[in-house]
Amino acid sequence: MENLKHFLLALCAAGAAGFVAIIFVLRWVLHFKEGLGWDGSLAEFNWHPVLVVTGFVFLQGTAIIVYRLPWTWQCSKLIMKFVHAGLHVAAFLFAVIALVAVFDFHNAAKIPNMYSLHSWIGLTAVILYGLQLVLGVGLYLIPVTPVSWRTACMPIHVYSGLLLFTTVIAVALLGITEKLIFGLTNPKYKDSPPEAVFVNILGLLLVIFGALILWIATRTSWKRPSDQTLHVLHTNSGGEDAKVGPALSDLTDETNAESGEDVRRRSNKPPVDNQVD
Amino acid sequence: MENLKHFLLALCAAGAAGFVAIIFVLRWVLHFKEGLGWDGSLAEFNWHPVLVVTGFVFLQGTAIIVYRLPWTWQCSKLIMKFVHAGLHVAAFLFAVIALVAVFDFHNAAKIPNMYSLHSWIGLTAVILYGLQLVLGVGLYLIPVTPVSWRTACMPIHVYSGLLLFTTVIAVALLGITEKLIFGLTNPKYKDSPPEAVFVNILGLLLVIFGALILWIATRTSWKRPSDQTLHVLHTNSGGEDAKVGPALSDLTDETNAESGEDVRRRSNKPPVDNQVD
Repeated sequence: MENLKHFLLALCAAGAAGFVAIIFVLRWVLHFKEGLGWDGSLAEFNWHPVLVVTGFVFLQGTAIIVYRLPWTWQCSKLIMKFVHAGLHVAAFLFAVIALVAVFDFHNAAKIPNMYSLHSWIGLTAVILYGLQLVLGVGLYLIPVTPVSWRTACMPIHVYSGLLLFTTVIAVALLGITEKLIFGLTNPKYKDSPPEAVFVNILGLLLVIFGALILWIATRTSWKRPSDQTLHVLHTNSGGEDAKVGPALSDLTDETNAESGEDVRRRSNKPPVDNQVD
Repeated sequence: MENLKHFLLALCAAGAAGFVAIIFVLRWVLHFKEGLGWDGSLAEFNWHPVLVVTGFVFLQGTAIIVYRLPWTWQCSKLIMKFVHAGLHVAAFLFAVIALVAVFDFHNAAKIPNMYSLHSWIGLTAVILYGLQLVLGVGLYLIPVTPVSWRTACMPIHVYSGLLLFTTVIAVALLGITEKLIFGLTNPKYKDSPPEAVFVNILGLLLVIFGALILWIATRTSWKRPSDQTLHVLHTNSGGEDAKVGPALSDLTDETNAESGEDVRRRSNKPPVDNQVD
């Protein structure tokens, strides 16, 4: 990998920002707010930010960059696809439970649902994320899907994934703003009490985490090498082939074709998409 | 250009979303709110959303994709760099005046400044946008800057530009949410009066505009061809060279080097960055 040090620096920074964000959201609901519960009260609402930050932001971000971790390159692409999909499924489940918590609370407190921009974009993001999951599994994990479909859809899969991730962070910032305005009454949000400053910092941490994940996900030099390249590298290094062989042998032509770029590499065509100008 | 129809469709959709968003923000402040003025009142505040949507979102988005418009490819890269920079400078000025409007209003109404997540991220974005402008001009418009610096910094320039654009849209959504909560009292935001629904739709339009700009900006097949390619194309088509020659002759080695990829193309190296996996 080119610039391994830079990669590890970005990865550690992203991990730290994500980890601290999770600590912050837990401290917010446990120290500043009413704690956690499942009884229709504010304690049930509090599962909403906790699950969103932990699952819909942190797990989703991890799922996005999981192919880039160099120590996973000895695993077969198929296994990594299951890890990628599994993390996204977990993130989706967290998001759905987060939605149930907020709808439960709203219904118990007789607060209307789905009136805010936060709710409009947030629900749309969860639905599209579910659709992305279904299409992703159908295209890249079901062996019968034609290679040409996989190749054609990869740029859209990648773009949609990054756009949804970015949107989810924006929606989280909207939720933080709403909650601080509604939840702080004396002193108010505008009086900058400690909770307001603390949760604003949580918002900044989410932005930093998102920015780092997007940086890692869009550096081509940090991309998982094609399995052909890995095979050649290990063969040439001598004695390594036997160790890596079994993992690589898990790969079928279909799973190799998961990446449109992999296909283009084999046909010696330059990449035509997914590239920032 | 590959897929010209798709490009034109995406461009028209982005233009339409951006144009309708501008109409929406004008109708919001002129019909639902207090109109526009410059007297420290709410009418002065109203310049804030108008200038942000018109300048910091729409003009910035236009600046980002201006190289991709095929009918500009006969213009020299240097001219297009001035157009790109000029649009960004205009967007920056709109953003600064938008800031002055909101600070003026806050000071006149004795509302604290800089307490909200919207203000924290928003002011940071304006400052970093200014820095990006200064660095962009220094690196890519001043002829003495070494080609190696230009090449090395291009991935960061592109990434920062797209990240700032995305952040600005997220900050605009935060501003919309704040204004709807504070500005709607009877009926409240949660009662979904017409203004709330109308301005939520404005938020959706900004998201759609942003998503389309990011799509256009990240398709490699829609990238402006290198000037060498354009020159060869026009030479081979016969009789066109004389027409295009003078424009291309504006380009120096330095201006050609603005794009790291241009440099790599000349040295026959594959692009190593800027590419979404």
